[in-house]
Amino acid sequence: MQFWYNETQSSGTRYSYKIMRAICRKKSKFQNIEIFQSKDNGKLLVIDKFLMLSERFEFAYHEMMVHVPLFSHIRPEDILIVGGGDGGCVRECLKHQLVKTIDLCEIDKKVIDLSKKYLPFVGSYLRNTKLKIHYQDGFHYLTSLHNKKYDVILVDSTDPDGPAAILFTRKFYQAAIEHLKNGGILGTIGTTPFFEKNLLKKIDRALNSSFRYVKHYLAFVPMYQSGCWSFMLASNKNIPTRAIRDNVIHPSSLDYYNAEIHKSSFALPSFYKRMVISSSPNKL
Amino acid sequence: MQFWYNETQSSGTRYSYKIMRAICRKKSKFQNIEIFQSKDNGKLLVIDKFLMLSERFEFAYHEMMVHVPLFSHIRPEDILIVGGGDGGCVRECLKHQLVKTIDLCEIDKKVIDLSKKYLPFVGSYLRNTKLKIHYQDGFHYLTSLHNKKYDVILVDSTDPDGPAAILFTRKFYQAAIEHLKNGGILGTIGTTPFFEKNLLKKIDRALNSSFRYVKHYLAFVPMYQSGCWSFMLASNKNIPTRAIRDNVIHPSSLDYYNAEIHKSSFALPSFYKRMVISSSPNKL
Repeated sequence: MQFWYNETQSSGTRYSYKIMRAICRKKSKFQNIEIFQSKDNGKLLVIDKFLMLSERFEFAYHEMMVHVPLFSHIRPEDILIVGGGDGGCVRECLKHQLVKTIDLCEIDKKVIDLSKKYLPFVGSYLRNTKLKIHYQDGFHYLTSLHNKKYDVILVDSTDPDGPAAILFTRKFYQAAIEHLKNGGILGTIGTTPFFEKNLLKKIDRALNSSFRYVKHYLAFVPMYQSGCWSFMLASNKNIPTRAIRDNVIHPSSLDYYNAEIHKSSFALPSFYKRMVISSSPNKL
Repeated sequence: MQFWYNETQSSGTRYSYKIMRAICRKKSKFQNIEIFQSKDNGKLLVIDKFLMLSERFEFAYHEMMVHVPLFSHIRPEDILIVGGGDGGCVRECLKHQLVKTIDLCEIDKKVIDLSKKYLPFVGSYLRNTKLKIHYQDGFHYLTSLHNKKYDVILVDSTDPDGPAAILFTRKFYQAAIEHLKNGGILGTIGTTPFFEKNLLKKIDRALNSSFRYVKHYLAFVPMYQSGCWSFMLASNKNIPTRAIRDNVIHPSSLDYYNAEIHKSSFALPSFYKRMVISSSPNKL
């Protein structure tokens, strides 16, 4: 049965996708998970009525979420992904030959199981032997962890104003710092600067109160509200705004990321720059 | 009466805006023109069922449409705008003190009259004394024009696959070259690379078969499909990919454009680069 899946982005803006059929609809302990076959955006993963990914455009998001932090680090060997149960970030991390271990901390086992079953373009990478999956929330994972430290921690969660809110707090960032090696980098999603200015300022303030260096970058992500998505890098060591290693990934396996895009993604439109300056006046 | 204005972007994707009331609905000799008061995107201008601008986000489009070409030119004094009857490009051109004359070539007088009346944030600039309005289509204006030459010609038209199609052909570009001064630059809208690959390749081929140098650039434009909009600069003189003059515009009057954004906007995602290379293999 065909229908339109509607996502009301703000009270006056709505995006809709034509759906050919619902592939599955499951309620887990944590959330409602739906997978649809759309007419011209491939498969869609929807969690609690928010589109998490479309098969057609997830490449832009996952490449920019992973390769900007990983190419900002001199030797990313041990990676922690918080969230990201679909497997998209795992797929991109595995393109880096330097990566030795990936811990994936996903609270909801159902997301992982359904992605493996129905979304092979991302989910099939969840079977890789470099990967260890922890069914736990990111904050408790980090605070109960004793020895392991990471080169890069990636926060690929649901929206910062939903149940994942803790992953955007000073408390979480302090826990992350404890488990970053010297020179380690935290990479996190932000939100859309065109619609969510207050949320973006809040994240910026929490990052700046925890890390010495914070850099924002942007990417075109058509599957999310406004098409403009922000990300942040945070570290206690200065972060370069260019790829610092040679691109050891074969270009044919990248559809969005390249070295010029890496550098350029840190250029922010004027309204965004003003927003960030006003939230962290002492840092800039 | 409240309702949702729906724009079906492709057969399977739709964007909708909540409308509080229709301000006006007119049928001109050329097209249907509607102006709506939306719930949270300000006023909307809709022509033949396509959103031309929203009051909330037109700044991103108009600033990038105008300032990238004008800051690529050493001395932009005489400007021709083809289309752009709403007045948004005129407003941005007027921010450049070097600009002496602006010819605006808009086929539809009704667009100009309605913009002056209902869309003062752009339309009020249509009364400026530097501006001369020609109610004519761009191609015939250029081919019937004898003496005048321009530093910059801007094509700010409706979609390249609608009635404005002629403005994206070799024929039009040849006419434009006749009326560009030495070192003159043509700046034109493209389309969204995420959805309209064939159209983009077609425009790229037409530009490359007419001009020695063609450069593509991108901006975040949330009011258009996918939120990612392309533009092109074309010239018979090499085009720098950075602002070549000091920013004589006061930064407070710019919400999107700045010198870093100018430079960065020429960085193209890998799928876009491949597209352009395949359409103009001899140029790159």
